[in-house]
Amino acid sequence: MTQTIRARDLGIPFLGEPGELNAITDVAGVEVGHTTLIEGEGELRVGQGPVRTGVTVVLPRGKRYDPCFAAWHSLNGNGEMTGTTWIEESGFLEGPIAITNSHSVGVVRDALVQWHHQNALYDAIAPGIFWLLPVVAETYDGVLNDINGMHVKAKHLFAAIDQASSGHIAEGCVGGGTGMNCYGFKAGSGTASRRVKVAGELYTVGVLVQANHGDREELTIAGVPVGRELADIPGLSDAIAIPPGAGSIIVVVATDAPLLPHQLKRLARRVPMGLSRTGTVGGHYSGDIFLAFSTANPSDARRQGLQEIKMLANDELDPFFAAVAYAVEEAVINALVAARTMTGINGRTMHAIPHERLLKILKQHHGATLKG
Amino acid sequence: MTQTIRARDLGIPFLGEPGELNAITDVAGVEVGHTTLIEGEGELRVGQGPVRTGVTVVLPRGKRYDPCFAAWHSLNGNGEMTGTTWIEESGFLEGPIAITNSHSVGVVRDALVQWHHQNALYDAIAPGIFWLLPVVAETYDGVLNDINGMHVKAKHLFAAIDQASSGHIAEGCVGGGTGMNCYGFKAGSGTASRRVKVAGELYTVGVLVQANHGDREELTIAGVPVGRELADIPGLSDAIAIPPGAGSIIVVVATDAPLLPHQLKRLARRVPMGLSRTGTVGGHYSGDIFLAFSTANPSDARRQGLQEIKMLANDELDPFFAAVAYAVEEAVINALVAARTMTGINGRTMHAIPHERLLKILKQHHGATLKG
Amino acid sequence: MTQTIRARDLGIPFLGEPGELNAITDVAGVEVGHTTLIEGEGELRVGQGPVRTGVTVVLPRGKRYDPCFAAWHSLNGNGEMTGTTWIEESGFLEGPIAITNSHSVGVVRDALVQWHHQNALYDAIAPGIFWLLPVVAETYDGVLNDINGMHVKAKHLFAAIDQASSGHIAEGCVGGGTGMNCYGFKAGSGTASRRVKVAGELYTVGVLVQANHGDREELTIAGVPVGRELADIPGLSDAIAIPPGAGSIIVVVATDAPLLPHQLKRLARRVPMGLSRTGTVGGHYSGDIFLAFSTANPSDARRQGLQEIKMLANDELDPFFAAVAYAVEEAVINALVAARTMTGINGRTMHAIPHERLLKILKQHHGATLKG
Amino acid sequence: MTQTIRARDLGIPFLGEPGELNAITDVAGVEVGHTTLIEGEGELRVGQGPVRTGVTVVLPRGKRYDPCFAAWHSLNGNGEMTGTTWIEESGFLEGPIAITNSHSVGVVRDALVQWHHQNALYDAIAPGIFWLLPVVAETYDGVLNDINGMHVKAKHLFAAIDQASSGHIAEGCVGGGTGMNCYGFKAGSGTASRRVKVAGELYTVGVLVQANHGDREELTIAGVPVGRELADIPGLSDAIAIPPGAGSIIVVVATDAPLLPHQLKRLARRVPMGLSRTGTVGGHYSGDIFLAFSTANPSDARRQGLQEIKMLANDELDPFFAAVAYAVEEAVINALVAARTMTGINGRTMHAIPHERLLKILKQHHGATLKG
Repeated sequence: MTQTIRARDLGIPFLGEPGELNAITDVAGVEVGHTTLIEGEGELRVGQGPVRTGVTVVLPRGKRYDPCFAAWHSLNGNGEMTGTTWIEESGFLEGPIAITNSHSVGVVRDALVQWHHQNALYDAIAPGIFWLLPVVAETYDGVLNDINGMHVKAKHLFAAIDQASSGHIAEGCVGGGTGMNCYGFKAGSGTASRRVKVAGELYTVGVLVQANHGDREELTIAGVPVGRELADIPGLSDAIAIPPGAGSIIVVVATDAPLLPHQLKRLARRVPMGLSRTGTVGGHYSGDIFLAFSTANPSDARRQGLQEIKMLANDELDPFFAAVAYAVEEAVINALVAARTMTGINGRTMHAIPHERLLKILKQHHGATLKG
Repeated sequence: MTQTIRARDLGIPFLGEPGELNAITDVAGVEVGHTTLIEGEGELRVGQGPVRTGVTVVLPRGKRYDPCFAAWHSLNGNGEMTGTTWIEESGFLEGPIAITNSHSVGVVRDALVQWHHQNALYDAIAPGIFWLLPVVAETYDGVLNDINGMHVKAKHLFAAIDQASSGHIAEGCVGGGTGMNCYGFKAGSGTASRRVKVAGELYTVGVLVQANHGDREELTIAGVPVGRELADIPGLSDAIAIPPGAGSIIVVVATDAPLLPHQLKRLARRVPMGLSRTGTVGGHYSGDIFLAFSTANPSDARRQGLQEIKMLANDELDPFFAAVAYAVEEAVINALVAARTMTGINGRTMHAIPHERLLKILKQHHGATLKG
Repeated sequence: MTQTIRARDLGIPFLGEPGELNAITDVAGVEVGHTTLIEGEGELRVGQGPVRTGVTVVLPRGKRYDPCFAAWHSLNGNGEMTGTTWIEESGFLEGPIAITNSHSVGVVRDALVQWHHQNALYDAIAPGIFWLLPVVAETYDGVLNDINGMHVKAKHLFAAIDQASSGHIAEGCVGGGTGMNCYGFKAGSGTASRRVKVAGELYTVGVLVQANHGDREELTIAGVPVGRELADIPGLSDAIAIPPGAGSIIVVVATDAPLLPHQLKRLARRVPMGLSRTGTVGGHYSGDIFLAFSTANPSDARRQGLQEIKMLANDELDPFFAAVAYAVEEAVINALVAARTMTGINGRTMHAIPHERLLKILKQHHGATLKG
Repeated sequence: MTQTIRARDLGIPFLGEPGELNAITDVAGVEVGHTTLIEGEGELRVGQGPVRTGVTVVLPRGKRYDPCFAAWHSLNGNGEMTGTTWIEESGFLEGPIAITNSHSVGVVRDALVQWHHQNALYDAIAPGIFWLLPVVAETYDGVLNDINGMHVKAKHLFAAIDQASSGHIAEGCVGGGTGMNCYGFKAGSGTASRRVKVAGELYTVGVLVQANHGDREELTIAGVPVGRELADIPGLSDAIAIPPGAGSIIVVVATDAPLLPHQLKRLARRVPMGLSRTGTVGGHYSGDIFLAFSTANPSDARRQGLQEIKMLANDELDPFFAAVAYAVEEAVINALVAARTMTGINGRTMHAIPHERLLKILKQHHGATLKG
């Protein structure tokens, strides 16, 4: 994996202390995998491309059936995340989270069922009566991608799982984020993490975003409304008659802190506090849907009798709320910074945010607070 | 306390196995108290009566500050239960639940604050920065009571708490249920409980209702639509131009099973399944609001660091769902059976359901299944 | 279409006045279509059958893109209904509702996207930037069906839409209901409707259920607990180690009354009041998810400027609440009565409820109230 | 009323175009009134003061019973807003919104019932069966105020209503905001408005906040983290052992745009996007509860038959989302800027934000973008 540049490498300041990798994989056990599909150029011919799409998976506890406490929240539900009704009811996330383009949610969803079935991951628990309610979220990449060509197949989901790993994560134009744009710039996947010390213990909050939201003129970085100063760079609305701000942002929040489902919902509800730090007010055409899970308690609590579990008291949650907001902010900017200019269907070009101009604007405002 | 007759005494059949007292107080530690205000007769003179009202309190863990896990649900929110926003957020109920008439919610709410303050119940935890978000629910008793006379005072709340106890609970026209009617008959407070054996342990589910809901023609007892056969008895709509079905039902569900807030919400969501068994479809003019709490886990989980708590796995919950539905059904019928005919403002008389006629109708349908 | 027998044909009594067909298609414009897949016998060989599954579609306003106001509710979310996040946000349902087996939600979901795309249904509104968030619900038919064989294909969804029509609807073992069981008996699709007269106008409420829920011993018909008296008939738990009550029920509520999204949610919240009338308390293993829509207002309110729309005042809703509860009750019993005994994978047989024994039990309780 | 200084007077920049008064009263018909209670000095003697509290009322359509569409949202429910269950159910707000201190919610709530009753506001609609579910929200002022002395009386609510008017609104240490602090500075009430032009029509969004939330180090104004540069000014945690960030913020959003309840909920859900712009992440100890209403449609839709109403299509909402976020941001800063240093119980002093130092810090960052 070629390491892309990150927002901190440019000297952009953020609040809070990141984990070792500043990634969702700082939460032990979490694995991330991407399948990236880039093929063809030129005019759109539905079913033949060009293709600019993919699949991203987040595996909360690796490649096994091992449910963990979870909760979700929606800022603006112009999108899809399957499986949320069961998460709300049960308090558990029961498998990988997959993210793909808006029109391929179904194939990826059924492929997740197949993956569990083919690997007999559920059989030890309930032989012969296996059913699953997978979690698949989406963002729209039809500006650059032949989205109605249905190029994502079950094998692409399997490949994303196969190559999923802990450690460094690719950012930018990869996986489900391949064809995305954010605030009128090319974007995609981003990640970040924060350390939280409470009650004498060190915990980690990690986030992964697939950022496809926001209007150029809203873009704010480190408190500076940089979007308006970069208005000359062609954006989405120049390429296509799509409303400014159309898109979506999917956010996955992971933690190793022992939080109950209703506490994880509170974390998910802080994602907008981080998104707002990058300028958006949550557009009507945007599917801004968030999921938070905790790897701390054993999955037996999902099925078997009386369980002993741990929980952090409510009074300890403030540092987690801040961790979510600040990590989401950084992950969105990481997605922007890592992305590269891409040309897709009908020769449409989505420009990456120009690093040098960005830094120049930030320095005008922040002076010595920026490195380099 | 004069023991009133109960539905089982009449031989009315119900599903499930009740606890020892067939009351919410079968859940260890739960205390219930009533202040009943009955004064005056004749024409309504606002501020002077007649008075047919009161206050009921349910203390989850007795007369101390000792929060417990809780959740709530509304079938039809034409009513008030204060404190629910904090229960939803925190997962905790932090004090007594009080039930009074619709226009006295405020005085009882502030009196609950005072009670905590005057008894210094909170000071050990947070000296000098005490605040509280009390839970007070209501039903409308203005058909019989001078509701705008504001006859409920702080002292009545204090008295209800003082006399609250475990053990037998008064039913019928007592406390917050004094002036209520249900399915066009005089009603009030009712209670019931169920034993639940799961994972080798015996648990209890107890409910307390204040039943003020339903249209006469809906009333169903033991599967028999008895309301239609008792249509000749004068009801609410004969006394006043109020829509049939106007009223409310407040239900408190208690359990000693270690359930988390999101699981308690599932219990609260089964209250309608019990109400439906008595015939209602949940009327527009009815405030049908339900609260469920568990006494199993320690309240330290509310405030202090890392806690070890217990939970029952989701797969064990079906017997609890049934327990809630069946206990709610019985508690509503208990409220009807225990109530006595009452005359209130302007000489309006609300009739109790006639036990003998009721039994005769039931026997026509059920034959030998009824005792006596 | 062979007309199956219906609950009323047997003389089973229900409350309320049905529409002309006593079906969801009594709501003008609503079309229903089924694709039924029955192939093979004998031992399960994953991918080769036996197959006992299908797809059902409900088209709110026929075969075009014409969004209508909608809302949803979940009694127990052990299931999936895609698209609910957008319905909650926007207040609109934007296309057909499809129902299939639990593991084929994805293929049907993407096929709904394709159907809109291939028929250019969206292009007039937003050429070139089409995206859709389809509504697909599921119930589990893996007791009889090779559910992991993934036998449902896009063409089956297309066929269900093609043959969708107003008028009479097939009930029992058809479409998405092909392999379902309910209260331990063979079941499937069922429908019913009610007339509602308010404010001088006649409206219709129609429901369609796919009933796969409930434990035998809970089954109640016309207030009589018939399930316990039919305990000798082999049921689900004899065929397979699946928890009693496992399954699901999907309910679609349609009306031509001008109700707003928040009012339609109130209708959806009354579905449990109808389900309870058939005995269930809402099992943990059941995905009980409900959607309500209104065909009254124009879809322009979805997209264009300032709109004039109609709404019924809240005070008129009680008859609609009753209509939902009573029609849901009847539709569930219709699904049971219409179903035929079916043998599926591994020779497992799911028995239909025996009409004659059922009637005999009912007559013992109801006597002259039953016809015939 | 002495006009206090406002954030714009200092040259602080905000996004969007304000209405004429830059106040919630720019929405025609909206009236605001404050009763401010400031008495005594020195040591706290519960019941005798010192008193630093009050009541604020917002009347959506003046001093009559005239319900309007409404919805609510909670970012962090460590607070109370009565009446929300009925708003959620009915889609209507049925009277004034009152805001007072945490322990006086009850007295103000019952006083609102009395006000309607004594003025016979409901009698024309439903003589003799009046009931009401008033909306009262709270923030905690016990740092400066003898909050357990229960100094707020019914007469103070009546006075706030009596003097309520359209036009200019007092900001800072008035009404329910009298004893509040925000980001460690003295704060209170603030207001702002935005003009929104969509579909050829000009609409207004107005907000009123009572700001009592946030930790000093979070405070951000115009994108600049000014709180950290003002760390030397003594704050809340110096006066009392209360967690940083404890407090609350109540926000009322008014608009004359014809939005339905589910659309108003979307507006309420944008309040956090504005709060985040001032730095907070939504603290655990904070009751951040928001209500949005629309004055556009007639209240007949609450009660009578078939109604014709207007609605703006969903696709027009983006400018309203921005208006809410930007007006909330400005109203919070207005509350801070208008407040004056206050000394309360036990000689505790809460400092106002120093205007000159604030401007100096902002100018260091923004240079020429600041006036003056």
